[in-house]
Amino acid sequence: MEHKLSTTSDQGEGQPIRCKAAVARKAGEALVIEEIMVAPPMPREEPPGCFPRILGHEAVGVVESVGKDVTEVTKGDVVIPIFLPDCGECLDCKSTKSNLCTDFPFKISPWMPRHESTRFTDLNGEIIYHFMFVSSFSEYTVVDIANVTKIDPEIPPDRACLLSCGVSTGVGAAWRTAGVEPGSTVAIFGLGSVGLAVAEGARLCGATRIIGVDVIPEKFEIATLMLQSSSVERGKKFGLTDFIHALECGNKPVSQVIIEMTNGGADYCFECVGTASLVHEAYASCRKGWGKTIVVGVDKPGAKLSLSSSEVLHDGKSLTGSLYGGLKPKSHVPILLKRYMDKELQLDKFVTHEVEFKDINKAFDLLNNGQCLRCVIWMDK
Amino acid sequence: MEHKLSTTSDQGEGQPIRCKAAVARKAGEALVIEEIMVAPPMPREEPPGCFPRILGHEAVGVVESVGKDVTEVTKGDVVIPIFLPDCGECLDCKSTKSNLCTDFPFKISPWMPRHESTRFTDLNGEIIYHFMFVSSFSEYTVVDIANVTKIDPEIPPDRACLLSCGVSTGVGAAWRTAGVEPGSTVAIFGLGSVGLAVAEGARLCGATRIIGVDVIPEKFEIATLMLQSSSVERGKKFGLTDFIHALECGNKPVSQVIIEMTNGGADYCFECVGTASLVHEAYASCRKGWGKTIVVGVDKPGAKLSLSSSEVLHDGKSLTGSLYGGLKPKSHVPILLKRYMDKELQLDKFVTHEVEFKDINKAFDLLNNGQCLRCVIWMDK
Repeated sequence: MEHKLSTTSDQGEGQPIRCKAAVARKAGEALVIEEIMVAPPMPREEPPGCFPRILGHEAVGVVESVGKDVTEVTKGDVVIPIFLPDCGECLDCKSTKSNLCTDFPFKISPWMPRHESTRFTDLNGEIIYHFMFVSSFSEYTVVDIANVTKIDPEIPPDRACLLSCGVSTGVGAAWRTAGVEPGSTVAIFGLGSVGLAVAEGARLCGATRIIGVDVIPEKFEIATLMLQSSSVERGKKFGLTDFIHALECGNKPVSQVIIEMTNGGADYCFECVGTASLVHEAYASCRKGWGKTIVVGVDKPGAKLSLSSSEVLHDGKSLTGSLYGGLKPKSHVPILLKRYMDKELQLDKFVTHEVEFKDINKAFDLLNNGQCLRCVIWMDK
Repeated sequence: MEHKLSTTSDQGEGQPIRCKAAVARKAGEALVIEEIMVAPPMPREEPPGCFPRILGHEAVGVVESVGKDVTEVTKGDVVIPIFLPDCGECLDCKSTKSNLCTDFPFKISPWMPRHESTRFTDLNGEIIYHFMFVSSFSEYTVVDIANVTKIDPEIPPDRACLLSCGVSTGVGAAWRTAGVEPGSTVAIFGLGSVGLAVAEGARLCGATRIIGVDVIPEKFEIATLMLQSSSVERGKKFGLTDFIHALECGNKPVSQVIIEMTNGGADYCFECVGTASLVHEAYASCRKGWGKTIVVGVDKPGAKLSLSSSEVLHDGKSLTGSLYGGLKPKSHVPILLKRYMDKELQLDKFVTHEVEFKDINKAFDLLNNGQCLRCVIWMDK
């Protein structure tokens, strides 16, 4: 049921593989690139913690070998690993309404999804934990067939990998979860990669007004330096038609500014920051009568979002969550990739940096400093 | 723009009318039936409070006369007053997506909607306030054309009046707001008239499993006495297939019981009690992946509903409010009444009591004691 995913295949098929991986040995510390063993199933053990661990969940790779009962992909196929399982057999996977597999529900697990064990050991035989069913910061990894989508090998790998999570989540949130209609107005809270991907999805769906909201002035400035353009130009590159700098709204709440700009509120509002309290602001920014608020951002565990009961009852709005943009990995990712190849979906603009695998920690520095949208890590350079 | 609504017409058309009305003179006290004057527009005055007031918002009546610019109805037409305006001219009223008129937004107003003034005075000339744009506890009232729907005069008035608010709200919540699909599973929190009307709406939409939840044991017992049937039989009468007595679930939350009964949760959950904290229980009872929670009950002003941010993000569910069941008064009420005449929509079972106008306070006692679903008040007996 499993296969090994890598960028190159140079060891005996089906044998344990010795390769390099970036191992997270302690929380908060830089990753350590070291040689590891990738092997067949290990018996389950209770983890003392979740380290050492191989992180990474956005990638593209080539199948090195497959486990028993895998017929969907074969050696040499180009695939995207996707953290959200799509088993194809449960009620949810068979339904067009859900993208949340019942048999293998999403979790930030240290194990494989089907046989709860790890496939990684270091060269001393110590086990290394998995991450989100993918663990792509390794030359070789093992991924369940439920977490793999086969793609057209003609698609450039440094673009295809964007659909593993962040960009597809944003595009999908507009396309699948919200169902943005042509001519509609969209407001996006948070202009990181996910928020900008919502803008791209909304543009593809025919939205005519796309308002971006952010609260950190440095983000606009960094964006200016990064793309050698003003923040307005950066916004336009991503389909945004209007900006709201949330710290420059005077005494008005952002929702009031949006309501005034749009003569009643946006048809769709997306919370892409991951701050539960912002969900209410997004909700308040929505058009009474039919506005939809889509929660895309991930807040801390235990965070609560609060809405006024009478507002919910009287305003005819709806609130929905969007995990992986509501996309069904195996059905929708190939559609999005085709739209990329047809020059409709724009992916190039999301890749602002590239690093070699040995410099993987630089990619985190770039992200932490707000200097990049997506940084491609090349394993084989 | 206005017309006078009554069950009989025995005074000069267009003249001030002297008639009987049940006046709410003080909060918490019984209504007082007294003679009042119903007259043309009065200049706006700030109310010292909202009493004395003529309550009542579910009714049927005959047009006695119409104001300037009213062409939609004429003298002698049978009409239903509906608290939710439908002006037919604003963006919302023209849209199929909204039932929330922009020009005359819903409010519990003491005035008429268009010319903010009152049409009622007592025989000493003291003004009497309006209620929800309807004030039907009077032999004659004045209602804006935006709040009037003309109906087929063949429809029995003691059934048509049910579509002014409670029954149409429940039926509409299932039909329009939720869009209940054939074969689906529905859970209803709160089995008053509105909750039972949701059941009727869900049955009409083809739901195959309709689960009723209530927490007050006396309600089941009273229902038994009232309809001379067991609570299960009462439920069946309203299309319910299952009951959950929320105080007899052992240590399990109701949501857990529903999830076990339905192998994953109900497709649609309706909160019809008006308790914000119950909204979370309804949300938790919904099917992951596609479940919808519809807020129908009215909680106190200022009540907040709270949801876990990660639950919203990870579960693919949606939350929507439903005012007047999402129905557009002038488009959807005639459809529902036709379905009643075609013996599809069952209205008769909601009328459990009748009183004469002089006994109007008995109707409140019956409601307060939980002894009735809907009590028809006859003005002309």
